[in-house]
Amino acid sequence: MGILKLAHGKVSTPFFMPIATKAAVKTLSIDEVQSLRPEIILSNTYHLYLQPGLDILKKFGGLHKFMNWDKPILTDSGGFQVFSLSKIRKIKDEGVEFQSHLDGSKHLLTPEKVVDIQKIIGSDITMVLDQCIDSTSDRKEVQKAMEITTCWATRARKYFLKKKIKDQLQFGIVQGALFEDLRKQSAQELKKLNFDGYAVGGLAVGETNDEMYKVLNYIVDELPDDRPRYLMGVGKPENIVEAVKRGIDMFDCVIPTREARHGRLYIWKNSNLSSGKFYQTINISNEKFKTDKSPINKDSKIPALRNYSKAYLAHLYKTQEPLALKLATLNNVEFYLNLMREIRRQIEKGKL
Amino acid sequence: MGILKLAHGKVSTPFFMPIATKAAVKTLSIDEVQSLRPEIILSNTYHLYLQPGLDILKKFGGLHKFMNWDKPILTDSGGFQVFSLSKIRKIKDEGVEFQSHLDGSKHLLTPEKVVDIQKIIGSDITMVLDQCIDSTSDRKEVQKAMEITTCWATRARKYFLKKKIKDQLQFGIVQGALFEDLRKQSAQELKKLNFDGYAVGGLAVGETNDEMYKVLNYIVDELPDDRPRYLMGVGKPENIVEAVKRGIDMFDCVIPTREARHGRLYIWKNSNLSSGKFYQTINISNEKFKTDKSPINKDSKIPALRNYSKAYLAHLYKTQEPLALKLATLNNVEFYLNLMREIRRQIEKGKL
Repeated sequence: MGILKLAHGKVSTPFFMPIATKAAVKTLSIDEVQSLRPEIILSNTYHLYLQPGLDILKKFGGLHKFMNWDKPILTDSGGFQVFSLSKIRKIKDEGVEFQSHLDGSKHLLTPEKVVDIQKIIGSDITMVLDQCIDSTSDRKEVQKAMEITTCWATRARKYFLKKKIKDQLQFGIVQGALFEDLRKQSAQELKKLNFDGYAVGGLAVGETNDEMYKVLNYIVDELPDDRPRYLMGVGKPENIVEAVKRGIDMFDCVIPTREARHGRLYIWKNSNLSSGKFYQTINISNEKFKTDKSPINKDSKIPALRNYSKAYLAHLYKTQEPLALKLATLNNVEFYLNLMREIRRQIEKGKL
Repeated sequence: MGILKLAHGKVSTPFFMPIATKAAVKTLSIDEVQSLRPEIILSNTYHLYLQPGLDILKKFGGLHKFMNWDKPILTDSGGFQVFSLSKIRKIKDEGVEFQSHLDGSKHLLTPEKVVDIQKIIGSDITMVLDQCIDSTSDRKEVQKAMEITTCWATRARKYFLKKKIKDQLQFGIVQGALFEDLRKQSAQELKKLNFDGYAVGGLAVGETNDEMYKVLNYIVDELPDDRPRYLMGVGKPENIVEAVKRGIDMFDCVIPTREARHGRLYIWKNSNLSSGKFYQTINISNEKFKTDKSPINKDSKIPALRNYSKAYLAHLYKTQEPLALKLATLNNVEFYLNLMREIRRQIEKGKL
């Protein structure tokens, strides 16, 4: 447990970042985001670069003012979205060429350009451009992607330092999929670049939980003790608990918002975090909730979740009222933030 | 100007009722509805009857508790939705048979059943079942529909009184399209039934503004002075001003929420209500708003509308973020409620 000091405020570790992909946490206004008390949120460079675009972000003096959020923001590098969203991508030494998933227009991201974009966005924590591949790819592919990632990280770090950027941190991203020697090599090389923090990338994209934990078991020790460690895109609540046990400080994941869209709600059960049964998920569209007068979430700090019944929320889903998504999103993001608060509490008490 | 006392509170006339078709004002939670300070809202019997259905509403002790709204509610009779949504409908002496627009199931609404349904809903103001037709229909059709409406109103009133319902008001609905003699005949016959209030139905469904005002010019005098008069489904802001001048007390309309879905925002200009130029609408998707740093609505009492820029809202529309609909709905419903507040202020000052 610790405190991470950033340009827009302090953040207690370990923490979870709600995702504001396109400059909004899906369905929530900023006062609703604030009511959930996150200390930092994440936004996506790839999406912001395409929409609203750099001209508008520049005009507003950055993302914070554009979206009315005055606390820390982390932005990813766009590497993952180029890998997951763009139909065509071409890895060159220079960088990665991709086609916008919106209009098919062609763009080139280079390690240096990604630094510049994130400078315009004004995020507190920036990530270097990396090449993401499926965690189950074969060794040759993985090695090549890892080497490109290291090369780009070197260029990005050099450029960042040359620009004398003071109000942002820059994190490197360890790749190497499930190959221990490649992961370790990646970590060793990034460490030499003296990043402000280190991320483990390329997990939660196809491998099993055990395979993910195995990577964490050896990779955390390879990273400097005095820098934050970020497990990108992970994950389920039990993944987060297991990763914290293995020394991870930072998380982000689309699960709480994506599951909300499907009517699946995360509900706290007890504080026995190691049991794997400290929570349950309910599918609000289940027949039995149609007449359930009990609150959506009796323990929530959000009045609407205590005051509306499960039956009402089930009705909103059935009738496709947009309010349904908002209530479920509030519930699930609150669950994830409460999980992190409980994790910090248990670390403090020496229980975790 | 006056005060209407209802089971769930007092309402200042003239007033506008935001529409909660399916037990929610589209995109808003109840605390957001409350922040707009309406004194009464409207919900639709047809939709509630189909979803969530009477069993669930009964279990909750009515719509107020189901949707967490403790102020007055008016429900329509379902007559208009049978006319506008159902693919097949069959008018019989007994009532109207229709097919659900959701699953094609067949249902029969009778004047008596509509009283019973609204009793279960527990609305403060209930409407009688009427037969709606296009305002431009030919005389023979209009006369027939008006006569059926009068017949059903007679049965509905008789049934309502027999049931000794005390905590609800019952309103009759004047039909007759654009035929002065039929409208007057309808009003005369309904007056004999001593309803708690009278609605003018079948307008804003195809006729011109002048045709609508012409009906109001003669029909209001036919209705009792001491009962509220309700112009159903109307309308544009200037329609409301003109109708108030002609003695109408109550309004509802889908415009503020429907226009919000299309990104059209109502913005107040000045208090010269008779000019027809007291407001403007802006289309937030217009190119010029992409870089507009000015607030969505600098005069709003809703912090989000003062704090977010037009450029941000334009971005939310472009990227189809659900938050866009909420912000536009808040803006437009607030505009309509402010219009009514201004109308009441000007009546009080003798200006209108």
